[in-house]
Amino acid sequence: MLIVMDQKATPEEIDVVLAVIEERGYTARPIPGGERVSIGILNNKGPVDASQFLGLPGVKDAIPVTRPYKLVSREFRLENTVIQVGDVSVGNDGLLIVAGPCAVESESQALTIAKHVRGAGAHLFRGGAYKPRTSPYSFQGLGKEGLEILARVRESTGMPVVTEVMDFETFDLVEEYADVIQIGTRNMQNFSLLRRAGQARKPILLKRGMAATIDEWLMAAEYILEGGNSNVILCERGVRTFVHHSRNTLDLSAVSVVLKESHLPIIVDPSHAAGRRDQVIPLSRAAVAVGAQGLMVEVHHAPEKALSDGAQSLYPHQFERLCRQVRTIFNNLKADETSS
Amino acid sequence: MLIVMDQKATPEEIDVVLAVIEERGYTARPIPGGERVSIGILNNKGPVDASQFLGLPGVKDAIPVTRPYKLVSREFRLENTVIQVGDVSVGNDGLLIVAGPCAVESESQALTIAKHVRGAGAHLFRGGAYKPRTSPYSFQGLGKEGLEILARVRESTGMPVVTEVMDFETFDLVEEYADVIQIGTRNMQNFSLLRRAGQARKPILLKRGMAATIDEWLMAAEYILEGGNSNVILCERGVRTFVHHSRNTLDLSAVSVVLKESHLPIIVDPSHAAGRRDQVIPLSRAAVAVGAQGLMVEVHHAPEKALSDGAQSLYPHQFERLCRQVRTIFNNLKADETSS
Amino acid sequence: MLIVMDQKATPEEIDVVLAVIEERGYTARPIPGGERVSIGILNNKGPVDASQFLGLPGVKDAIPVTRPYKLVSREFRLENTVIQVGDVSVGNDGLLIVAGPCAVESESQALTIAKHVRGAGAHLFRGGAYKPRTSPYSFQGLGKEGLEILARVRESTGMPVVTEVMDFETFDLVEEYADVIQIGTRNMQNFSLLRRAGQARKPILLKRGMAATIDEWLMAAEYILEGGNSNVILCERGVRTFVHHSRNTLDLSAVSVVLKESHLPIIVDPSHAAGRRDQVIPLSRAAVAVGAQGLMVEVHHAPEKALSDGAQSLYPHQFERLCRQVRTIFNNLKADETSS
Amino acid sequence: MLIVMDQKATPEEIDVVLAVIEERGYTARPIPGGERVSIGILNNKGPVDASQFLGLPGVKDAIPVTRPYKLVSREFRLENTVIQVGDVSVGNDGLLIVAGPCAVESESQALTIAKHVRGAGAHLFRGGAYKPRTSPYSFQGLGKEGLEILARVRESTGMPVVTEVMDFETFDLVEEYADVIQIGTRNMQNFSLLRRAGQARKPILLKRGMAATIDEWLMAAEYILEGGNSNVILCERGVRTFVHHSRNTLDLSAVSVVLKESHLPIIVDPSHAAGRRDQVIPLSRAAVAVGAQGLMVEVHHAPEKALSDGAQSLYPHQFERLCRQVRTIFNNLKADETSS
Repeated sequence: MLIVMDQKATPEEIDVVLAVIEERGYTARPIPGGERVSIGILNNKGPVDASQFLGLPGVKDAIPVTRPYKLVSREFRLENTVIQVGDVSVGNDGLLIVAGPCAVESESQALTIAKHVRGAGAHLFRGGAYKPRTSPYSFQGLGKEGLEILARVRESTGMPVVTEVMDFETFDLVEEYADVIQIGTRNMQNFSLLRRAGQARKPILLKRGMAATIDEWLMAAEYILEGGNSNVILCERGVRTFVHHSRNTLDLSAVSVVLKESHLPIIVDPSHAAGRRDQVIPLSRAAVAVGAQGLMVEVHHAPEKALSDGAQSLYPHQFERLCRQVRTIFNNLKADETSS
Repeated sequence: MLIVMDQKATPEEIDVVLAVIEERGYTARPIPGGERVSIGILNNKGPVDASQFLGLPGVKDAIPVTRPYKLVSREFRLENTVIQVGDVSVGNDGLLIVAGPCAVESESQALTIAKHVRGAGAHLFRGGAYKPRTSPYSFQGLGKEGLEILARVRESTGMPVVTEVMDFETFDLVEEYADVIQIGTRNMQNFSLLRRAGQARKPILLKRGMAATIDEWLMAAEYILEGGNSNVILCERGVRTFVHHSRNTLDLSAVSVVLKESHLPIIVDPSHAAGRRDQVIPLSRAAVAVGAQGLMVEVHHAPEKALSDGAQSLYPHQFERLCRQVRTIFNNLKADETSS
Repeated sequence: MLIVMDQKATPEEIDVVLAVIEERGYTARPIPGGERVSIGILNNKGPVDASQFLGLPGVKDAIPVTRPYKLVSREFRLENTVIQVGDVSVGNDGLLIVAGPCAVESESQALTIAKHVRGAGAHLFRGGAYKPRTSPYSFQGLGKEGLEILARVRESTGMPVVTEVMDFETFDLVEEYADVIQIGTRNMQNFSLLRRAGQARKPILLKRGMAATIDEWLMAAEYILEGGNSNVILCERGVRTFVHHSRNTLDLSAVSVVLKESHLPIIVDPSHAAGRRDQVIPLSRAAVAVGAQGLMVEVHHAPEKALSDGAQSLYPHQFERLCRQVRTIFNNLKADETSS
Repeated sequence: MLIVMDQKATPEEIDVVLAVIEERGYTARPIPGGERVSIGILNNKGPVDASQFLGLPGVKDAIPVTRPYKLVSREFRLENTVIQVGDVSVGNDGLLIVAGPCAVESESQALTIAKHVRGAGAHLFRGGAYKPRTSPYSFQGLGKEGLEILARVRESTGMPVVTEVMDFETFDLVEEYADVIQIGTRNMQNFSLLRRAGQARKPILLKRGMAATIDEWLMAAEYILEGGNSNVILCERGVRTFVHHSRNTLDLSAVSVVLKESHLPIIVDPSHAAGRRDQVIPLSRAAVAVGAQGLMVEVHHAPEKALSDGAQSLYPHQFERLCRQVRTIFNNLKADETSS
């Protein structure tokens, strides 16, 4: 943290700032400049709260200098975290493909789609049993029955399953059935859920909040790692902006930044970013091209009959095309990086 | 919902759309135009999911025409909902003032501040026992001890207390101690929490999500009303935008829109919008001038020692000035509206 | 500017940064910390370009510490700039009210509205002769004829007139007719126009760009002051956010920040922020309550027939109510500040 | 346009709306529903201004149904517009690569970089002679001297040149020297400049405004086409959002939408979106993968000495890698689409 004083800050005001810094147990380092004094804060463990200084007389600004996260940081751990799910490993040299319907609607629906996506090359099957819905009047998911269907899909197809947990109450149940537990965008800062996820024995797929900065997102992951679970897969899914031609704006530079800042694997969900089927394949290609380590895509064999998010679900033949195209991009990119 | 077809949509494509509409149990009304056909959807109960149509061949757009909410709507209930908290009523002719520290830190801190704010005219005391914090390393609140302190503050001062609930697990406890239960911005779409709030016997103060539209916010309230609790106070607290000179951007037109669209009371939290003390009084005046029915303000007797959000907490003498200024605005506005 | 080095930055990388700083003619001050080195840049005239450092090996961040503006800054000039327009002065103790139609449509329209708004207490008349329109097929304004009408309105009513200039080509003409020359939101960073405005003999009303930070806005004003014209009135008119219940989101904390950072007067345009008539009066009250030194409001005697922006234009009787309400707020606020 | 009436709108209010529609020369088509009446507007040439209706009594909403643009629309012209620049054609089957420094600084700098980028496979050379700068104290470009240098670069290397025009005054000069005339993000709605560009004999590269919707962007292009110049290349360069880990947020779904909505070619500028060198290559790959028809990239042989935007400029060897990687993606994508 760097405290920037007003040009006209008095020596007394500067002394108060120095005293507050020392009182908190940090070290203060004054930096006299031509026009004004700045004061560096050193020897802090964990983030310094700017608000402790912003309101003091004579303080113009309090600027964070270092990142607030620790365990998730690549400065803390240099090598990629590689997460094993069944036969698949995430975060190493392969491209993870997760696919399935938005919601589990019935066993036959789930199985039909699972076979399609497995055939096209998906590694993990996704499907919601508990659905966060903006309206209380919308379909809320099959609940426990949905989880049981997922288990039967896994049995039939051999695919590990990813499903969302919405609350502490159903966490045990979801943990029992899922291979990867998803925490959705609306729960990215549900800190009780994050603490519970820190104790889970299954990997967590943590979606970015729809208005979260990367710092906030990595701090949410920090809750999970700090709780003892270091198997966290990050998932970029678009952020809310003034733009309305897609449901959200996919922030692909976030992938580059996360790869640099953190050792955790990062995948992309183009379906929720787009909200419209015709943008999903192009955005999937872009996500893999930017360097994402995986994709999570919604697929439905009859999207016009889907109980939720049909508009963004791909038809099976579209998903095949997607897989083919992204694999080519991924393999060429790996080859290029190996050769250069 | 209005379905807009492509200029070149074929009669077969139009027929498919008509069939899908009827299959969902709605009524389809085609509207032939000069250049293209549109199709109105009638007789829907609850919101129609645009995604059911957006992906169909020949469909250019699916445009929501009516609002998705019902119980919270002023079209459903014309008169203001008035909520009684102790001696205070919210949503009628008075101006509600809620004040207190960000977090309860100790009994003496809480009592000191409570006496200050009561003296200046606050009706309700606020203070967090459970604190949602971006970092797992930051002060997380005193928990149950904080709730007990709040109870003693109520006893000593006679002020009802408002405090935040963060999860289902601690809901019973918070409900036992609080007079008004706050659901914070990060939990606005924590649907398990909203459902539990629907069964609470205490009024709920529902903050707007930091990237929520008014529709989403009112739908979150709809969850609570639909669950059986119609005592919901809405609280605008700023939204996330590209602007960084304040922590969030206070969206005051939201107050006008909510007053028009809903019968629920709406108050404003200028402290979290500003994030800096020097903007709090001006924004408070603006909030009351725009028509808000109350304010929730952070006050601390020694903000530079506060364990959280000190930078935005007012000193007691500043809070007195705030109360004096907003009351003048409020009273003059009421007088003007009565006379005209 | 503070350069933050990577934890693992080598001494050689640090030396390169020091050399680049010195080469630019600045002074480098290394600040060794517990975990990493930071380097302060001192003795820079004008803003330092972060991009000169961000790409260097070993550099993690380049953080601006001081503001980039100079002439517009309150650190440069402590007292408010007061601008005289006819009998009215802006930026001192009074509240400026500018009102009129979006566009000048005819002499009788302009005169009718001017008499209404003068009667209600407006000081300046506004009306567009050259209109920036999103569509080339929309009404583009009457051009020179519009300016002549404005001159006749001034003659008849005694009100000085404000009108927008859109380009260098018509600047001379607009300067000849207008008492205050408006630069619109889309031209806030039209640097040729700003340079020309710096040579104008008339005050400039500079609207904030719809996605401009305060720094960028003040830098746009800096162009005008640097060119020799220190009579600049700033006008907040809402910014573009994800919010769509108003045309733009009025950013009232910007008023507080500008009042603190700059000596230039600042007024608010609630009409363009709202885009809908029913939000204009509430937002006007809020703007005055927050501390704005004036308002610019669209008024039309027959808004449903207006050639542009009818939906946000107030009826004359609404404008009277607005004037009455904001004056009460303004006067009480002044009285409170004088007495305390 | 669809006018949605209040549930309680009276027959008289509906009649007024019908009358206003007819008065404007449109056709009104009332659509009675279960709960409320809506009214379709037909037979409008050009966009209908929602504001003409939004303020009428009993009107709840006015919803645009069709797009406002015409000449730029793919509904107007089905085939891609292909633009010839020297030997290069844009918008057909090839991938256009434009590269060069942010600003022309000297003949030797420009020539050095031009030779590098030509060697790596760039088709067009870019370099600014007139630079829009946030600060009046920053380097503003070499002006006419810069244009002359560009001409000599073209002569030496055979590469056509792209350079920005900032105003009407210098348009003739830029038009004389440039092969493609760039209109920058800050001038996207500088309508005088757009009208002048409509008369230019050279293709226009029109960058998206940093807070522009696609509709606004295409309407800006519509100004140019309507003026007589149909050679417009669109360039996505990132939009302003709450995100700050990149200078802007690259909106790649915009590429998909533009390809669908318009026949004009679209390219992407990853350098200005990123603002940091290490994001440029990944975003370039993503842009090509999403379907962009070209890239415009900043390259500098000594970015740490660049007079502007050094942090985002690639070193020549990085640009070679970029070209190699994006060409592989592009060619494989073309092959895939041809074969399927």
